[in-house]
Amino acid sequence: MIQSPYLLFLGDAPDSLAAKVAQGIRDWRPDASVGQFRMAGCKADMKLPDMTLAEAKAAGARTLVIGVANRGGVISPAWKEVLVEALEMGFDIASGLHSLLRNENELVMAAHRGGCELHDVRVPTDAYPIANGVKRTGKRCLAVGTDCSVGKMYTALAMDKEMQARGLKSTFRATGQTGILITGSGVPVDAVIADFMAGSIEYLSPDNDDDHWDMIEGQGSLFHVSYSGVTLALIHGGQPDALVLCTEPTRAHMRGLPGYQQPSLEALRDMALTLARVANPDVKVIGISANTQHLDEDAAIAFLAGVEARMGLPAVDPYRQGAARLIDALEAI
Amino acid sequence: MIQSPYLLFLGDAPDSLAAKVAQGIRDWRPDASVGQFRMAGCKADMKLPDMTLAEAKAAGARTLVIGVANRGGVISPAWKEVLVEALEMGFDIASGLHSLLRNENELVMAAHRGGCELHDVRVPTDAYPIANGVKRTGKRCLAVGTDCSVGKMYTALAMDKEMQARGLKSTFRATGQTGILITGSGVPVDAVIADFMAGSIEYLSPDNDDDHWDMIEGQGSLFHVSYSGVTLALIHGGQPDALVLCTEPTRAHMRGLPGYQQPSLEALRDMALTLARVANPDVKVIGISANTQHLDEDAAIAFLAGVEARMGLPAVDPYRQGAARLIDALEAI
Repeated sequence: MIQSPYLLFLGDAPDSLAAKVAQGIRDWRPDASVGQFRMAGCKADMKLPDMTLAEAKAAGARTLVIGVANRGGVISPAWKEVLVEALEMGFDIASGLHSLLRNENELVMAAHRGGCELHDVRVPTDAYPIANGVKRTGKRCLAVGTDCSVGKMYTALAMDKEMQARGLKSTFRATGQTGILITGSGVPVDAVIADFMAGSIEYLSPDNDDDHWDMIEGQGSLFHVSYSGVTLALIHGGQPDALVLCTEPTRAHMRGLPGYQQPSLEALRDMALTLARVANPDVKVIGISANTQHLDEDAAIAFLAGVEARMGLPAVDPYRQGAARLIDALEAI
Repeated sequence: MIQSPYLLFLGDAPDSLAAKVAQGIRDWRPDASVGQFRMAGCKADMKLPDMTLAEAKAAGARTLVIGVANRGGVISPAWKEVLVEALEMGFDIASGLHSLLRNENELVMAAHRGGCELHDVRVPTDAYPIANGVKRTGKRCLAVGTDCSVGKMYTALAMDKEMQARGLKSTFRATGQTGILITGSGVPVDAVIADFMAGSIEYLSPDNDDDHWDMIEGQGSLFHVSYSGVTLALIHGGQPDALVLCTEPTRAHMRGLPGYQQPSLEALRDMALTLARVANPDVKVIGISANTQHLDEDAAIAFLAGVEARMGLPAVDPYRQGAARLIDALEAI
């Protein structure tokens, strides 16, 4: 578990996109961070107080979270000076970068001196079991996508937020780096050994109250040949009661795979439902979540209305419209 | 690559089942082993010459292969004495046990002294890429099962053997420990990091001659919630041209999952075909391979005839009948 509150490290981010991890934390846990740390030339801004390490320490920050990605996911020498100083002052550091904190000798030594922890959230921290398939108490919702990066994490977070707003029991269960940094814990399922993937999801989403929902972050797509195995492990380890179909309507082909077409929402529904019924015969598709950021408002509304009529299910863009209608559908089952 | 010829180490196997890895090597690569090494009390017999280490060395053996599994997959102290001596004499050692050779200090030191190698075939040896989905030349056949342990490896090996007998181009591609020990190389896909599973299969089965078939060893089952993700990675990384459906007709429930029923062959066919078409739209199911060891001859023949009539595809038990009809079907596409 990553200790909050956070100091968001934005480094020398060349633009706001480079700081999208920080933006995710800011959007979904607005109270988790006491401030931001920006170096000379930083072009990102989370609209948080700019703080020195000492000011952040005085404000109670416990973990410096690297909210920015360098090209290639490396830890630049310019950053390292700040990170070493932070560790010596007793900050933990959390990172989702490809280059691991633990592989940097200077950081390891500084963490030792400061008596603090390095969290590489790309690396599994626990010994996960092999999945046993035993039915768990409580309810689970999983977002599945026509493709990778179509808004599955956003959808699960938006649904969790709406549940909280209604005073209902819900937990967002992170399965990727950004999700783990947002919530402070989770399973980086992409990095788990094949035999233990489904078991890691059983571990992530244990027995719970009968009226509690886990909103499980999806990964990959059943139709994306690079990562489909991870998606199926989420479906079988998650044993979802509800599925939300996620899509991005303007993609020309599968992400990173020029020769591969996007599946239809109907194909996704049929495939995901059939596979999910193996683990939970009562699973239902409750709605569609579309990332319509590349459509203007009129086109987005028209697209969603068309999908809704065609599929007979609520279709929303949770960024434009919130997730209320998805939660209505969840409450109806 | 594990160097042959082998000396098959049977240790103190309490029965022949404990030596099933050795039996697999003996059955499928009858010429790979110069002899067997048995300790006092060994109840297994591969019908190979019993040899001392010195005799095996003189006969040209290069690798001692641990062909026996202890309870819990550990390396017993009784074995260790022999293994140390073998290493000091210059034998490599290959093992598919859960306990790794490389974690035993005595063996590591002896290997160093002998200048030889320890092969833990449960551990991936290469840095696999992320799958790119690009269509590869050559043909591929994948065995998919209604359940785990229904004869997928046996089927692929039997098909490869029949191809060789006909003078056709074929390679068995091992994806599990026993298969790797049989062939001397492969990818232990169960032990690969999730993100690289499909890529490891692309790596295992590269471009080849247009008339060459890879017979890819299947793992798990799309309907087995513990391992289904591995199976889907094999389907999408393997981009098979042909699928063989494997089943064991007497199972009461999914292996290790008392609450889960076996799927029908029709359900397996439809699910596997739909998913396999994502990577290869021309994929076909060419036949059914049933492990009928728990049926008597009449019941087995009746079962196979029933399946064949129902599914409209050749249905054989390759152990009883050979794989000729499966290869006929492969040649017909």
